[in-house]
Amino acid sequence: MSNQNYKDSQLYRIRHSTAHVMAEAMLERFPEAQIAIGPPIEDGFYYDFKLPRPATEEDLQWVENRMKEIIRGNHDFTVREVTPSEALEFFKDQPYKVELINDLVSGRVDENGEQIAAPAEKMTFWTQDTFTDLCRGPHVKNTREINPDAINVTFKPMAGAYWRGDENREQLTRIYGTAWETPEELQEYLRLLEEAKKRDHRIIGEKMGLFTISPLVGKGLPLWKPYGAAMRDSLERWLRETQIDNGYQPVVTPHIGKLDLYKTSGHYPYYKDSQYAPIQVDDEEFLLKPMNCPHHIMIYKSEMRSYRDLPVRLAEFGTVYRYEQSGELNGLTRVRGFTVDDAHLFVAPNQLLEEFKKVVSLIQNIFNSLGLTDFRARVGTRDPKSDKYVGDDQLWENATSAIIQACEELKLPYHIEEGEAAFYGPKLDFMVRDVLKREWQLGTVQVDYNLPARFELEYVADDNTRQRPIMIHRAPFGSMERFVGILIEHFAGVFPVWLAPVQAIIIPIADRHFEYADSVAAELKRLGARVEIDKGKSRMQAKIREHRERHIPYMLIVGDKDMEAGTVSVRLRTDEDLGAMPRADFAALMGRILESHSLELQ
Amino acid sequence: MSNQNYKDSQLYRIRHSTAHVMAEAMLERFPEAQIAIGPPIEDGFYYDFKLPRPATEEDLQWVENRMKEIIRGNHDFTVREVTPSEALEFFKDQPYKVELINDLVSGRVDENGEQIAAPAEKMTFWTQDTFTDLCRGPHVKNTREINPDAINVTFKPMAGAYWRGDENREQLTRIYGTAWETPEELQEYLRLLEEAKKRDHRIIGEKMGLFTISPLVGKGLPLWKPYGAAMRDSLERWLRETQIDNGYQPVVTPHIGKLDLYKTSGHYPYYKDSQYAPIQVDDEEFLLKPMNCPHHIMIYKSEMRSYRDLPVRLAEFGTVYRYEQSGELNGLTRVRGFTVDDAHLFVAPNQLLEEFKKVVSLIQNIFNSLGLTDFRARVGTRDPKSDKYVGDDQLWENATSAIIQACEELKLPYHIEEGEAAFYGPKLDFMVRDVLKREWQLGTVQVDYNLPARFELEYVADDNTRQRPIMIHRAPFGSMERFVGILIEHFAGVFPVWLAPVQAIIIPIADRHFEYADSVAAELKRLGARVEIDKGKSRMQAKIREHRERHIPYMLIVGDKDMEAGTVSVRLRTDEDLGAMPRADFAALMGRILESHSLELQ
Repeated sequence: MSNQNYKDSQLYRIRHSTAHVMAEAMLERFPEAQIAIGPPIEDGFYYDFKLPRPATEEDLQWVENRMKEIIRGNHDFTVREVTPSEALEFFKDQPYKVELINDLVSGRVDENGEQIAAPAEKMTFWTQDTFTDLCRGPHVKNTREINPDAINVTFKPMAGAYWRGDENREQLTRIYGTAWETPEELQEYLRLLEEAKKRDHRIIGEKMGLFTISPLVGKGLPLWKPYGAAMRDSLERWLRETQIDNGYQPVVTPHIGKLDLYKTSGHYPYYKDSQYAPIQVDDEEFLLKPMNCPHHIMIYKSEMRSYRDLPVRLAEFGTVYRYEQSGELNGLTRVRGFTVDDAHLFVAPNQLLEEFKKVVSLIQNIFNSLGLTDFRARVGTRDPKSDKYVGDDQLWENATSAIIQACEELKLPYHIEEGEAAFYGPKLDFMVRDVLKREWQLGTVQVDYNLPARFELEYVADDNTRQRPIMIHRAPFGSMERFVGILIEHFAGVFPVWLAPVQAIIIPIADRHFEYADSVAAELKRLGARVEIDKGKSRMQAKIREHRERHIPYMLIVGDKDMEAGTVSVRLRTDEDLGAMPRADFAALMGRILESHSLELQ
Repeated sequence: MSNQNYKDSQLYRIRHSTAHVMAEAMLERFPEAQIAIGPPIEDGFYYDFKLPRPATEEDLQWVENRMKEIIRGNHDFTVREVTPSEALEFFKDQPYKVELINDLVSGRVDENGEQIAAPAEKMTFWTQDTFTDLCRGPHVKNTREINPDAINVTFKPMAGAYWRGDENREQLTRIYGTAWETPEELQEYLRLLEEAKKRDHRIIGEKMGLFTISPLVGKGLPLWKPYGAAMRDSLERWLRETQIDNGYQPVVTPHIGKLDLYKTSGHYPYYKDSQYAPIQVDDEEFLLKPMNCPHHIMIYKSEMRSYRDLPVRLAEFGTVYRYEQSGELNGLTRVRGFTVDDAHLFVAPNQLLEEFKKVVSLIQNIFNSLGLTDFRARVGTRDPKSDKYVGDDQLWENATSAIIQACEELKLPYHIEEGEAAFYGPKLDFMVRDVLKREWQLGTVQVDYNLPARFELEYVADDNTRQRPIMIHRAPFGSMERFVGILIEHFAGVFPVWLAPVQAIIIPIADRHFEYADSVAAELKRLGARVEIDKGKSRMQAKIREHRERHIPYMLIVGDKDMEAGTVSVRLRTDEDLGAMPRADFAALMGRILESHSLELQ
């Protein structure tokens, strides 16, 4: 659901109203509590409180039960307009509300901390049962629209929050809740939450030896251990080759660039807050690369281009650095340095539609190949009322209609979000849903008229005039780190064969089978397969259990009969037993699965 | 020749003496000149002067002629000891010499700017003909040992130098010269110089579109264009696979690390001058990675290791940043950011010899595969008189004898240079000679007891005790950038097929052959080959000339007969014409050459 659709939905009103019900119950439990704000969020809502003592799980249970009672009371939600002085009088014992009211009156920020256009002369109170809140709504008409068996409250994921997110202000207790239309939906949600916990990429990543984060190296800077690096390399090689087949040319550029480069591009000081501080070298300043585009532009500019050379498609797995607050960092999915599967295409204006379609189609194929088939496009267009955009209207219109036409011709489901364009051009984001139904913003494709102008890019057209190319920025995964984090959770570590850190393990029954195991391993390694041999002392059943838990796709048990017959006894991680196979047949099977990047085991 | 052997050689004495003869001739040409210092260097010598007017090519010609006359005068070189006051009196009109004498007396630095142990109470004068210099020698006995037809003077490679290399002091005129034992040696040297100029990797790199350096990105930060990136990728993949076959495990680590990490490792502040300034993030400081070792160490430390896991061999093409003065930067061979083909091996003490041998043998194979067969090892040992080394004597002895034993068992020619060890352990450097007879220090292998101690690395030994592993640092190429620069000059752009940026070009005779050309290209691309099709309008002969100049190994001309017979007409870049071949036969030929990384074309 898009953000706008969500805000207009019944589910949003249910959650918003349930937040008020939770505040009512909390005030009964903690009459001295001070109340802050309680907005709906994705999948639920929260409310922040200043409490006279720490809340316990028991308190929460009491509150949840009391909420159900209140809901069953069939109370109306009613709204009335008040003046600031009425509001201040009403909330005189609630200092956070007083601050909110004063900010509204002085025209600074609204109750969600967002800047407002003008001072408020009137505000609204919403009331249900005994509870009244300063709130703009919307709400349900009556608590009977809320299903008491489809709600739930919890301390997770975070027990505290600073008032207004400002770490210099006091810390409040944040209580989370969720509400759904039916108990079945709630149960499914809780099941997926439970499943997500089991699939946490940080836990699986640690257990499978994929990556580690060392406080001494730095927060948000993952180190890829051998198994994770192997996976990442498979992903990069596959994407790289797919891109080369589609006319992309890999390049390699340094990880720093002069500040002047980013002043020319406009990334500095525009994105200053998300960049690392400049590094002084002699009398020059350098930035850790926040973006790859300016570097690729300098490669484009390093020679005179003709219309015959276009499109020029420069691709790089380019590592960039962005400052993130340390509290925001999370495993691979929120980091301070990440590798973008980046490419920049320089196209003539008459190539834009065709090339944009090719880009979108390539990304569609990439996600489909990985079994991520539940995706849709979000088309970010210009907000016609805003003046933050650069470039003339005709160019914007051309680009926007090219994007929409591409979606339609490729039958890619899309929705338009006005105001979501980059300041330099419209864009298309791939919204991909994983098996846990979580929606991730992954691939992005952006049309850019701005950088070609800022860097004065040119090509010689067929009439010998100098023309300006258009740039397309695109990255199917966005960040290799984040994407691998998502894949780990999507597959719960049970990766397709070609991505699995170890693809086959050979288990010799006794020491006298070691040599045969070595020769089978050598044969599979010639296919480029990642193979291990378990020569350990454990018992066979323990070995099988261990490697099944490691989700190794193929377990090959070799004993006397196998040695004699030139076979391997194949057991899949699904526990299916394929029995003895001639080793050449198994090599052919595995070669075929690897070569085709199949999601199947056979 | 090793540095020590060179200093003991007759050639060294000839060059040192010829430098004095040059100073004598210069003083005749410029009687007001002030003389600085004139040491022998690799392949020749120089002398720095402060001149009353800029020197011209004509002056140089006069000086060279006059040098030959002086040499033919059969003058003795004589030495005498003088006191500091005698020396100061003699050189009272030569302020640089006065400064040198005062520095010797005060016990600071010698005439080459190197620190000295104690103040000099005596110094020596060397005299030939009319010229006397403050000098420690050694020199030839008589100028008749110098062959006047085997000398040469020039302004190149650099017309000026700061006095004592200090940019705050005055700039002097540096005159270079060379001297050899025979005129034939001089001619060969001049021929190779001329050849080196033609092979300059900056010129070939620009012409072949391999890389570019953009002042806006930054000096010393090459951008790899598509053709160069393709070459570099071939080299990396090959090395990576060779390493995996030898039990190495690729990892990926971030390009920055906390300052604390480098304080623990001792790289900071020890190497501070060659590092970029730290970057402040919140209350922490980060460095652009100057070395990969601490990152690999943190991966080693991320799990408990058992003796059964050792050796652990972690490999990474890891980019590091080192500060170089901008005047020192040169194309790919002297840069500020470069990618080390790095690996760190963690071994048990009883594995050291065997593992060291494997490392050296792997590097030998790597260089041999590239046709770089003229190499030898320089073993850097501890200077027993110095106290700059860490670790106990027994460990040093073990490591040094392991290195020497490895060289002997592998029949690798080696020489020992005392005092050339790293402060943390002895090392072996591969000294590789290219086709121009230039010797490059490439691969390096170092034994390290220091970092395992500083990071408290451990493994569980078979008796269940905690033991400390030894680290081996190794990099066959040292720097991908520098190595590719060397390869460009070694091959003069005529790369082995597997490294060539474009490996085959298909030239259809007429438009009606385009489709056939496409299908041949697709077939070769399935082998992983880099193939282009020339559909341009130029005439056939012009196309062949152009692609031969691009050193494309295979030119495949396709016309009516080829289409009919399913053949391609193969022409090699050597101009050899293989005639029409069935396309499957050519694909097999090319596949075989690529697969085997052959240096041949067929």
